[in-house]
Amino acid sequence: MAPVKTQWKRLIRFVAAETNQVHLGEPVDPNQDVGLAFSQRRPVKAYEILGNATDPGAQVTSLVLTVKELLSPLARHEVGGIVRCLGLNYADHAAEANLQKPSVPVIFYKPITSLIGPGAIVTVPKVARPVQEHLPDYEVELVIVIGKAAKNVSEAEALDYVLGYTGANDVSFRKLQMSAGGGQWGFSKSFDDTNPLGPCIVAASAIPDPQRLPLKTTVNGQTLQDGSTSDQIFNVKQTIAYLSQGTTLLPGSLILTGTPKGVGFVKKPPLYLKGGDYMTTYVGGGVGTLANLVVEEDAKEKAKL
Amino acid sequence: MAPVKTQWKRLIRFVAAETNQVHLGEPVDPNQDVGLAFSQRRPVKAYEILGNATDPGAQVTSLVLTVKELLSPLARHEVGGIVRCLGLNYADHAAEANLQKPSVPVIFYKPITSLIGPGAIVTVPKVARPVQEHLPDYEVELVIVIGKAAKNVSEAEALDYVLGYTGANDVSFRKLQMSAGGGQWGFSKSFDDTNPLGPCIVAASAIPDPQRLPLKTTVNGQTLQDGSTSDQIFNVKQTIAYLSQGTTLLPGSLILTGTPKGVGFVKKPPLYLKGGDYMTTYVGGGVGTLANLVVEEDAKEKAKL
Repeated sequence: MAPVKTQWKRLIRFVAAETNQVHLGEPVDPNQDVGLAFSQRRPVKAYEILGNATDPGAQVTSLVLTVKELLSPLARHEVGGIVRCLGLNYADHAAEANLQKPSVPVIFYKPITSLIGPGAIVTVPKVARPVQEHLPDYEVELVIVIGKAAKNVSEAEALDYVLGYTGANDVSFRKLQMSAGGGQWGFSKSFDDTNPLGPCIVAASAIPDPQRLPLKTTVNGQTLQDGSTSDQIFNVKQTIAYLSQGTTLLPGSLILTGTPKGVGFVKKPPLYLKGGDYMTTYVGGGVGTLANLVVEEDAKEKAKL
Repeated sequence: MAPVKTQWKRLIRFVAAETNQVHLGEPVDPNQDVGLAFSQRRPVKAYEILGNATDPGAQVTSLVLTVKELLSPLARHEVGGIVRCLGLNYADHAAEANLQKPSVPVIFYKPITSLIGPGAIVTVPKVARPVQEHLPDYEVELVIVIGKAAKNVSEAEALDYVLGYTGANDVSFRKLQMSAGGGQWGFSKSFDDTNPLGPCIVAASAIPDPQRLPLKTTVNGQTLQDGSTSDQIFNVKQTIAYLSQGTTLLPGSLILTGTPKGVGFVKKPPLYLKGGDYMTTYVGGGVGTLANLVVEEDAKEKAKL
């Protein structure tokens, strides 16, 4: 098996100012954090990419386009239907949550309807209000993007199936997560428009070691998570091999690999997200920053209370 | 909100002998159990339906086609990406499993790659062998098929979002289900080709009360489950309303509503599925029978042991 090869080093999806159409592109400035730049209304330019994100023949052209709206690097319909997530995959996070370090990966899923773009609004649904009781929480995560169908792959060959890496904020609703029927987490992680994804996919070839990437979260300017993928309990290779047992990981599949310590609900008193909060989650290696405002569903309704 | 209206009463998807193409159809004999007939190599004829299953404008024509291969009524890519399932939704099943009757729905998900047709082979993956240790198990279930996007719907209006009902066999691997990391069930319910679906979708209009449907399972001719949806803890209306909180249920979404008592792993000694076993799961109301052979992955490898 050969590694996935792409012509692009970093891939973004965006609406171009010039065309008002959705395009794929390679950022012109190889060092720009496109998510941060976009959130600060600084210009982001990209060479147009022709083809699909998971298409190894996708070509980087010389046509430069201007980002008008930055989208998640994969559209909802491109991610193979289901988003796979690891829980408690950092020892320091398991410890802060007073939970045992897992001996096998803790796996849960979320639907594609949870995914939003790098600058989109995170919605706290009515079912998770009031926030001081439901404790909406941030979780910065490294995301594996699968490039070709993977089933029963060994750890040794696992990285050959990776298209690249991106970032996510696995926004979590702690009361529902902890009190759901049968202890299952899926429902509480499923809400529409709660999972920012992006901003770039960095090609696997550009991140030969995914276990050395910094991860950071801020809320309203305060740094709350500051970790590294070096602290993962199950590393990227192990995670892919484990998840591919008996199961085909389709091209475009996303695997969120867990979050380091610093989440809000374990703090004393608990820190929780509320309408108007502004979060950034950052993954290194060229992935960059997701910057998202939190809005409570039916904020107007609430204002009348 | 008006109920979903379809011209068809029962919908099947199949490869026609006349064309070797995939078609949708309405069985010519309104009383035929098409899954049972197909499994017994008796002829199944259907009027061709033009359009998609979730398209209210789909038209039943007078062209009669012969079923050469019976497929799941929705293709994998038509089910909205994720399959939602309820666990422990029958009091008698929760009791036999020595688990408390849940106070809120127990929800888990599986990927579309688990779905197979009414007569397809159920594969026990290598990760769930040997079977006497992993305890592969059958679960007959009524499946809700959502017809139009449903979000934050009330119990009173929930049935208006139902396209129809079908059946499933939620084949489960008990050791992995019980020992998965963090108690999460998703991974153990995810394996490729483990979830037969069908054989018909019966239009919602033809099943005004989904809480009066018989459910049956046989393995190698022996009846093992014999229940009724009247025993559901959370009924169809409640399930849709609960799941739609903050979450869009896309058209084509499937909700498996749980299984009644009689599963194998709680018997003494435990009954488990093994290569060569032949299962049927039946849902009443016109849905019919799924008939599936169990094969262990790499059966040839095993034969050498």
